[in-house]
Amino acid sequence: MSKIGIADTTFARVDMGAVAIKELKKGASVTIKRYIVPGIKDLPVASKKLIEEQKCDIVMALGMPGPKDMDKQCAHEASSGLIMAQLITNTHIIEVFVHEDEAKDERELKWLAESRTREHAQNVIKLLFRPKEFEKEVGMGKREGFEDAGPARL
Amino acid sequence: MSKIGIADTTFARVDMGAVAIKELKKGASVTIKRYIVPGIKDLPVASKKLIEEQKCDIVMALGMPGPKDMDKQCAHEASSGLIMAQLITNTHIIEVFVHEDEAKDERELKWLAESRTREHAQNVIKLLFRPKEFEKEVGMGKREGFEDAGPARL
Amino acid sequence: MSKIGIADTTFARVDMGAVAIKELKKGASVTIKRYIVPGIKDLPVASKKLIEEQKCDIVMALGMPGPKDMDKQCAHEASSGLIMAQLITNTHIIEVFVHEDEAKDERELKWLAESRTREHAQNVIKLLFRPKEFEKEVGMGKREGFEDAGPARL
Amino acid sequence: MSKIGIADTTFARVDMGAVAIKELKKGASVTIKRYIVPGIKDLPVASKKLIEEQKCDIVMALGMPGPKDMDKQCAHEASSGLIMAQLITNTHIIEVFVHEDEAKDERELKWLAESRTREHAQNVIKLLFRPKEFEKEVGMGKREGFEDAGPARL
Amino acid sequence: MSKIGIADTTFARVDMGAVAIKELKKGASVTIKRYIVPGIKDLPVASKKLIEEQKCDIVMALGMPGPKDMDKQCAHEASSGLIMAQLITNTHIIEVFVHEDEAKDERELKWLAESRTREHAQNVIKLLFRPKEFEKEVGMGKREGFEDAGPARL
Repeated sequence: MSKIGIADTTFARVDMGAVAIKELKKGASVTIKRYIVPGIKDLPVASKKLIEEQKCDIVMALGMPGPKDMDKQCAHEASSGLIMAQLITNTHIIEVFVHEDEAKDERELKWLAESRTREHAQNVIKLLFRPKEFEKEVGMGKREGFEDAGPARL
Repeated sequence: MSKIGIADTTFARVDMGAVAIKELKKGASVTIKRYIVPGIKDLPVASKKLIEEQKCDIVMALGMPGPKDMDKQCAHEASSGLIMAQLITNTHIIEVFVHEDEAKDERELKWLAESRTREHAQNVIKLLFRPKEFEKEVGMGKREGFEDAGPARL
Repeated sequence: MSKIGIADTTFARVDMGAVAIKELKKGASVTIKRYIVPGIKDLPVASKKLIEEQKCDIVMALGMPGPKDMDKQCAHEASSGLIMAQLITNTHIIEVFVHEDEAKDERELKWLAESRTREHAQNVIKLLFRPKEFEKEVGMGKREGFEDAGPARL
Repeated sequence: MSKIGIADTTFARVDMGAVAIKELKKGASVTIKRYIVPGIKDLPVASKKLIEEQKCDIVMALGMPGPKDMDKQCAHEASSGLIMAQLITNTHIIEVFVHEDEAKDERELKWLAESRTREHAQNVIKLLFRPKEFEKEVGMGKREGFEDAGPARL
Repeated sequence: MSKIGIADTTFARVDMGAVAIKELKKGASVTIKRYIVPGIKDLPVASKKLIEEQKCDIVMALGMPGPKDMDKQCAHEASSGLIMAQLITNTHIIEVFVHEDEAKDERELKWLAESRTREHAQNVIKLLFRPKEFEKEVGMGKREGFEDAGPARL
């Protein structure tokens, strides 16, 4: 059975991991290994440990960077680390970051975090089990969370 | 027969992979392996897997970063990861990124994505089979997509 | 017995290491190995040496970046290096950085440095000994130092 | 006989490689291996291949970033990759980048590209054959291309 | 006998290496290996070669970034490379960079470069031979070159 790692944070203001796990279990019969860390800069090593020590086949790295310049910098460092971790392990780590200032209020923030997490959980299922399904979606301007941009029109 | 990897995204608003494959097949008899991922930050590991697991001789990494600051940041992280993946594998990954705000409307965006992809597909063919042809083009201010800048004039 | 590394600097304006050690010893029976360096850019290699040469199970990297653009840049380089060191060693390095301009005066700076260090020391204890406790805190908008943001409300 | 790699691009608007080769041959009896790629982001892997596959003792990476923000970003990514390639191979790669907006017109751009390339070719000869000569120049405010800044005066 | 590497540049406007060597010899009986390169982006590989090929126990990387945006970018790339080199070798490389625009005129620039170099040379001696001395200085707001910030006051 495939094993999916969920790395998430106490810093986030929504329990994105719970949403991810529910959606993943809806999509396929999988084993889940969850790893909670304080903040997004702790996600790269947590994800790598999920892959190398817990033998996960793929990882979702969930986080919610704050609105300040310093938070943006942290998000950049975390993202770079997640890419490095993928290159070292040859394994996908699907980053699901929701920036607090993407949403106009807390209500939308919660909605956005949940819907983006769900749609990325579906991406994980496709990457693992149904990569063919991406062929219908390639170049279609897909967006996770907010509305799709759609394909460019002539 | 040479094997060329095509990594592209569901985020892009144009099916750049299809354009690349058509142009590559026009230029040489090659095997294609395509790998579709959600977004540009998934391209580095996808490209590395194409090289190491699928034994591709070269990869085209196709993507279309959005217009927001956050999108620019993602593009930077993806590009850095693609360079790292090349250094680890000693294999070229030709990045073909079209930033949404490079074009004035969707029509131009589509044209730009297609023409840049085609011209980079030709670069891939030259790198693989006809490196001598670059000797005529070195220092000539070549641009992929938009018009060439041309050599500096006295 | 678990061994915790403390890497800190002469550049910082508060003895964060002493605060960390006191809080760690309050939380569990652990061995401490301290490593003092001039500035935050020396922390990545110091942390890695604590892990690889001193066999620490986890490291706290404590620093206090100054308020200038150049200081922000240094903090970014140090943070990126700390993430890299974690990826190479598969070991957590909990970064505790307090930017001088986060506080309105020296009194608040001292308070902030001490309280953030203490709360991260508690995180270290949880990561090492009581990871289950994070399950109650996941997605709760926890902040170290200043007040928690709390979970997003509907 | 020493072997020097020359990596350059079709994107540049001046044939910097030809200038480099002429100057290198003037300075010492060396073997040259040239590798032409589309743009500066292709230079890191090209340089590494020159070192590892072609056994070059040193490489010159020649490029001409455009004037836009996006071009500056590309230059940053390429430079970071070149430094990484040097660290992996323990071999110098002398980066010779001329930013288009450093020159006031195409005439000056051509002059700048040629003179900077020539002066860096001389640096390469010194690094390889006459490192002692750098002792007279250390801390002297040397600039490649434009006029030297000179040593700081009391 | 301990061996200290000195990597410095012809770009700098002050002979920082000479200042470093004099101060180091005053502090302890050590062997010095000097390596001069054109600019700061050449320092990471020079430092790594000093460590791996010349068996230096520690390195001082001395440089003087110019005042332009492009120079700041170079300094960032060089600093990131120096951190990477330290992580690969598990060896300290003490970066001593003096930005030209930190000083109000050439006289102050020279003073700053010399005093910062001297104080970092003392740091090197402490790291190598007297790490205990750092215990009195930890969290004391030490600055190299300009006046110390001092500890935060209540």
